Amino acid sequence: MQKKCAIGIDLGGTNLRVAKVSPEGEIVTKITASTSEEVLGSVHKAIDSLFSDEIAGVGIGVAGLISRERRRVIISPNLHVVEKIDLVGEIAKRYGVPVVIENDANAAAYGEMWVGAGKDIQSFVLLTLGTGIGGGMVHGKKLLNVPAEIGHMSVSSDGEKCPCGNSGCLESYASARAILSRAVYHLEAGRESLLQMYYEGNFYKLTTEDIFKAALDGDNLARDLWKSAGRYLGVGIANMINLMGPDAVILTGGLTGAWDIYIQEAVKEASKRAFRELFERVKIIPSLLKDDAGLIGAAGIAFNILRTQAV
Amino acid sequence: MQKKCAIGIDLGGTNLRVAKVSPEGEIVTKITASTSEEVLGSVHKAIDSLFSDEIAGVGIGVAGLISRERRRVIISPNLHVVEKIDLVGEIAKRYGVPVVIENDANAAAYGEMWVGAGKDIQSFVLLTLGTGIGGGMVHGKKLLNVPAEIGHMSVSSDGEKCPCGNSGCLESYASARAILSRAVYHLEAGRESLLQMYYEGNFYKLTTEDIFKAALDGDNLARDLWKSAGRYLGVGIANMINLMGPDAVILTGGLTGAWDIYIQEAVKEASKRAFRELFERVKIIPSLLKDDAGLIGAAGIAFNILRTQAV
Repeated sequence: MQKKCAIGIDLGGTNLRVAKVSPEGEIVTKITASTSEEVLGSVHKAIDSLFSDEIAGVGIGVAGLISRERRRVIISPNLHVVEKIDLVGEIAKRYGVPVVIENDANAAAYGEMWVGAGKDIQSFVLLTLGTGIGGGMVHGKKLLNVPAEIGHMSVSSDGEKCPCGNSGCLESYASARAILSRAVYHLEAGRESLLQMYYEGNFYKLTTEDIFKAALDGDNLARDLWKSAGRYLGVGIANMINLMGPDAVILTGGLTGAWDIYIQEAVKEASKRAFRELFERVKIIPSLLKDDAGLIGAAGIAFNILRTQAV
Repeated sequence: MQKKCAIGIDLGGTNLRVAKVSPEGEIVTKITASTSEEVLGSVHKAIDSLFSDEIAGVGIGVAGLISRERRRVIISPNLHVVEKIDLVGEIAKRYGVPVVIENDANAAAYGEMWVGAGKDIQSFVLLTLGTGIGGGMVHGKKLLNVPAEIGHMSVSSDGEKCPCGNSGCLESYASARAILSRAVYHLEAGRESLLQMYYEGNFYKLTTEDIFKAALDGDNLARDLWKSAGRYLGVGIANMINLMGPDAVILTGGLTGAWDIYIQEAVKEASKRAFRELFERVKIIPSLLKDDAGLIGAAGIAFNILRTQAV
């Protein structure tokens, strides 16, 4: 028999990413499309272009809360439309192969464990640092079947109200959304900064890349924004170290581009807060698979289900 | 062969508690002694009085951070003396049976899973609510081999400095120590309260039982103290629900005596903060084994090790 591949789908953010993945965890072909309101159509179209007899299963990673029992997305704050679709059922019906669904950060953790930065690590906590903050946990070389909503852990109980209903969520202080909204706040208040000249004052166009660039250029506001976000991230990392005592914390997502200021500040803060004995044994390291962790991981979970079913 | 028993030891707080436990998780005999500086001598004396050929192993639960690899207590903030003793080695040498060591709250979680409130529950988070706050986690009917230092999760990043090094630890707001220190603060500041008449104004003699009694008598300060602690506990519980999505949260320890005000406030707060879908499926319930959870659990872990070694 020829080797069978799986399709991994990442419905994590604004983009839909679909890949054909080999049993060794390598991406054979990858497609990126934008997610419209018509998510199911876009997903079908992408799978169509990759599907063949060689495909043994499909794994989907979605940003949000997943019910494993019901095999559905319960809440997806950034992509509400998927809450109403039976993604698993529809894809299984159309392609006649097993389909699994997982939270996108859990899928990324699976990917890093399988063929990434967590390959030789017994237990780690993964954080996805982007528009929002997601989490996944591996313990004893197994993905923990838990929500791991690290972005919605309150680190400031009387702090900012989060759309999730909680107050003081880590995500409200340490995510791209948080950094950008604080940037706008300070710029509108007239704070002196190189960023005042960007986009002719249309601050809503700023990206975290712009703010990182300004920070590298020595801009104080930009540096403060990264450092403040990094400090909160450090509080969150320290909490996860005290709870899980992991061998590693693996960081992925767009914000890790600002490693030298944002992540370094986080590591410094976590080192002051976590139990020293636990901090000393933890490695804080970047993802190896980067943006592909979720895609590869989703395919990996599909392979894993196929193996389990074969037994 | 006759049934073999195990000895469970709870070095959790100010008392040393030692019990002979049956393979069915029942306490056959129990001894309580005070822990002096001479811990090892007290432990030996207590085991001596229970030991016989019937004893197959010893399990020790200690408040603090345990290294499973080194089989030692790394830090025990309330009983520093055990950090310097090789408890496992000394007991194994003296009695010639296998000895295991675990964090006391992890041992309590094991006990509740084995024969307590968690017997029929797949996954739960246990919180010990006493002088400090400890935690233990069960996932898929297995005790998670993690520190679970829930009391040292920061829920108020710029909050009170904790002796552990972190700031804003849950324990600094929701434990007996926190309630008592706030009581003293308000009473010394002259706040009107029934508690002003207790112990002829020697507020350091107050107990949480006194404060609960005053709360039942309608005292506003006493009620505020419990409610504030309960609110923070609710923040901590919501965090654990968002992280672990457990089937249950099991609460144990002396403070659960104030269930109707402290725990009810915590449940109310957690209900506002946790993801609704996760909160709806979680049961927040009291421990069944109460103060004996740690003792029974420590013995249960010893039995478990014996089974593993026998295979």
